[in-house]
Amino acid sequence: MKFTARIIADFTKGEIIGNPDEVVTDIAKIEEGKTGTLAFLANPKYEKYLYTTDASIVLINKDFQINGDLKCTVIQVDNAYDAFTSLLELYAKLTPVKKGIEQPSYINPEAKIGKDVYIGAFAYIGEGAVIGNNVKVYPQVYIGDFAEIRDNTILYPGVKVYHGCIIGMDCIIHSGTVIGADGFGFVQQPDRTYRKIPQVGNVIIEDLVEIGSNVTVDRATMGSTIIRKGAKFDNLIQIGHNVEIGENTVVVSQAGVAGSTKVGKNCMIGGQVGLAGHVKIGNDVKIGAQSGVSNNLKDGETVLGSPALDASKQIKAMIVYKSLPEMSKKLTELEKEIKELKKKL
Amino acid sequence: MKFTARIIADFTKGEIIGNPDEVVTDIAKIEEGKTGTLAFLANPKYEKYLYTTDASIVLINKDFQINGDLKCTVIQVDNAYDAFTSLLELYAKLTPVKKGIEQPSYINPEAKIGKDVYIGAFAYIGEGAVIGNNVKVYPQVYIGDFAEIRDNTILYPGVKVYHGCIIGMDCIIHSGTVIGADGFGFVQQPDRTYRKIPQVGNVIIEDLVEIGSNVTVDRATMGSTIIRKGAKFDNLIQIGHNVEIGENTVVVSQAGVAGSTKVGKNCMIGGQVGLAGHVKIGNDVKIGAQSGVSNNLKDGETVLGSPALDASKQIKAMIVYKSLPEMSKKLTELEKEIKELKKKL
Amino acid sequence: MKFTARIIADFTKGEIIGNPDEVVTDIAKIEEGKTGTLAFLANPKYEKYLYTTDASIVLINKDFQINGDLKCTVIQVDNAYDAFTSLLELYAKLTPVKKGIEQPSYINPEAKIGKDVYIGAFAYIGEGAVIGNNVKVYPQVYIGDFAEIRDNTILYPGVKVYHGCIIGMDCIIHSGTVIGADGFGFVQQPDRTYRKIPQVGNVIIEDLVEIGSNVTVDRATMGSTIIRKGAKFDNLIQIGHNVEIGENTVVVSQAGVAGSTKVGKNCMIGGQVGLAGHVKIGNDVKIGAQSGVSNNLKDGETVLGSPALDASKQIKAMIVYKSLPEMSKKLTELEKEIKELKKKL
Repeated sequence: MKFTARIIADFTKGEIIGNPDEVVTDIAKIEEGKTGTLAFLANPKYEKYLYTTDASIVLINKDFQINGDLKCTVIQVDNAYDAFTSLLELYAKLTPVKKGIEQPSYINPEAKIGKDVYIGAFAYIGEGAVIGNNVKVYPQVYIGDFAEIRDNTILYPGVKVYHGCIIGMDCIIHSGTVIGADGFGFVQQPDRTYRKIPQVGNVIIEDLVEIGSNVTVDRATMGSTIIRKGAKFDNLIQIGHNVEIGENTVVVSQAGVAGSTKVGKNCMIGGQVGLAGHVKIGNDVKIGAQSGVSNNLKDGETVLGSPALDASKQIKAMIVYKSLPEMSKKLTELEKEIKELKKKL
Repeated sequence: MKFTARIIADFTKGEIIGNPDEVVTDIAKIEEGKTGTLAFLANPKYEKYLYTTDASIVLINKDFQINGDLKCTVIQVDNAYDAFTSLLELYAKLTPVKKGIEQPSYINPEAKIGKDVYIGAFAYIGEGAVIGNNVKVYPQVYIGDFAEIRDNTILYPGVKVYHGCIIGMDCIIHSGTVIGADGFGFVQQPDRTYRKIPQVGNVIIEDLVEIGSNVTVDRATMGSTIIRKGAKFDNLIQIGHNVEIGENTVVVSQAGVAGSTKVGKNCMIGGQVGLAGHVKIGNDVKIGAQSGVSNNLKDGETVLGSPALDASKQIKAMIVYKSLPEMSKKLTELEKEIKELKKKL
Repeated sequence: MKFTARIIADFTKGEIIGNPDEVVTDIAKIEEGKTGTLAFLANPKYEKYLYTTDASIVLINKDFQINGDLKCTVIQVDNAYDAFTSLLELYAKLTPVKKGIEQPSYINPEAKIGKDVYIGAFAYIGEGAVIGNNVKVYPQVYIGDFAEIRDNTILYPGVKVYHGCIIGMDCIIHSGTVIGADGFGFVQQPDRTYRKIPQVGNVIIEDLVEIGSNVTVDRATMGSTIIRKGAKFDNLIQIGHNVEIGENTVVVSQAGVAGSTKVGKNCMIGGQVGLAGHVKIGNDVKIGAQSGVSNNLKDGETVLGSPALDASKQIKAMIVYKSLPEMSKKLTELEKEIKELKKKL
């Protein structure tokens, strides 16, 4: 990329303070800015960097008061963070887009392939699989028989989609993620061995879902494991069979959701959280990192800890927990004092 | 699939109440049943669905008392759950079985390949590797030099088996699982850097083991990391070097077992559990989800929490923990009262 | 391998007690030693095995006092553990080294490939990628456009390196690990949906780093996620965007480090630990297994628990925690006694 301050100001509808011909070729955080980079200032906490950064151009909010000498060229915009995100999007789009079918790849003659797709080398597309328009199937991806990948979705290298699973439009799935492996279902036999319950359902991922790397989403025993529209998953997450995750729910890294649990919409599930099986979580629920939840939660609850409690109660209990050794000592002292009081009476 | 009630009754040795010519083409949970599906009722909790389900046929236990009007055809069997599982197995077997060697795949001329195998495109089989009869090696699987995969085992897409590891008969390993990567062994040097201890052992997985997706089982430093017959692993589990997991032991998602720990047979290890290294866990031990275990456990123990305690003790402590803020307040009040009592004396 | 005691004594500068022509063909732990194996004794706890092992040759420390009859040949060396590690290294080197370019593999014509490399079948090397000398790219590895893999590094089967990431010299990365997938960055919109923040940075892994299997290291939003020289990672670890891990820091299995957190050098991060985002961890910090850290930690701190406390404080609190039910009972009793005392006054 190579942009002048003038071009950036035009694109972001901003006003330039400084040199309109200043050139940037890369982007940076304001605290790591180097000559030739573009940065932004949105959080007032970082104001000091505005006067010291080596970044050549900095985007700031229109209503921000400049209180020092500037080394850099500044562009004033309505919302520096949004303007910067738009520029990041523009920058990301400048990466040449993958197109065409690389060889060797394996496309079953009974698969249906849409228009303008990218299919990387060593990708495998099974019998009856359906690939939409503008889909990007990176190298070493596996798409099982009768699976369906809808328009504009990106599957990064090494994603595995088992047979019969459906991935919606405009999804992004990162490397190493496995969609549709068997759910964990066994029946113990009288001799203590386990008999496998065949897992004959599938996984349905709706539109606009993003899933990180090395995630596992198991297929349903019967019916479907469902990830609703707009949900966002970080890395190394486990989703058990017949789970349902609601719209726009965010799940942070290394969290796990056990079988048949239903999570509502607009929830935030923190890192390393565990949700037990067959639990119902409402909408707008927030679950703090490393929590363990084995009960239903109502709309709007915020919980924390393992086992999880209402967050404000948990925080109070955590504070007292720290002073347990002092409490225990005090209790022993009081015991003695009471004994002595009793003697005196 | 397409079955009539009559055929299902014959197969399950059941008796029909309703239309013997009723047809089903899919299976469903009773609460999600649609016209044309087969469901079952085993848990009395779900009885109400028997009278409202849209499923066309429902399997029920012979001794179940019907207390309402039926819309569906019912088949009475000895054990509805077992009968349904048998039907699921039948259904699963109807999926056409993969056979033959797809191209391009890489089979080292020094590898030995059994009869009736499936080897998918982009699978890699190294020098001296041995593949048994009826083995299914899905696309993009890697089998290292001198590794051995015994009869009837299924390796799903992208499984990696390092050199010299042995996988028994009738095993199932899901996508992305890595068998036999180096154990985590280093010696700190005087300059604070680490010297790698070569990991020259292997992994041995016995017969009838199922392992979920994106699991990691490390090879032994010397000797073998061993997963005994009939053990069942969920997804994203970590098994360290020189670990041994006993027969029919079940390990739930995201649990981790550190190096040299030995787990007995018929154990249940919950989700996100951590077992420290060099620990010995007896037989029939149950470890609750998210527990942390750093001590040996005897046969039959049930533990919970991090650090893990006997489950009944842990549950009592957890209950008191919730009321810590009240306890702390009460303690402060008692302190005051005692002070006043002392003054009065 | 096939070595006599004489050859091993020469190599380790040791002295033989027993038969200099004793032959070993494999190595073993002393407690698992069989005829024809070489073992070592460093930890005095294992002394009893010296007199009972079936190992043919055992390395022991020069200053170790033999207090029993030996069945095996013994070699006395300065440091049995170091000598044994050197022999393990020798043994590991005897494995024939992979060389050459297997077919089919995909090497973009614009990629630069060094000397004496191994590129396995179904490996993918993108446009502008740079592969150093003696690099080993195992089968099914993906190296994105403009990524760089420096001299002597080993990428085991199925490793994925996204575009523009840099991996230093003498690194080892195990199967299924994903380097450079998008960081988890979204901005919530007024309608509750999330807008993706493009992740335009990269990952830089310095020299001599070892990373286990199925690890995920996300690329930076801007700038770089950095793993410093000599750091060692176990399996299934999550490293968020813009994280920095210091030199020689060790991270144990299933730990997670959230975005923008900086960890110093020579730290030990235990298994299943979670570090919150935007936290600063000093040098020489030790974090116990399953801890949760959301505050900065100073050089040399040792912490434990979730939330993490100074380890000695945490251990004291954990001890009292176990007796919470007794404490609660005692408190209730004291309350009663005080009530009665009050009545009497």
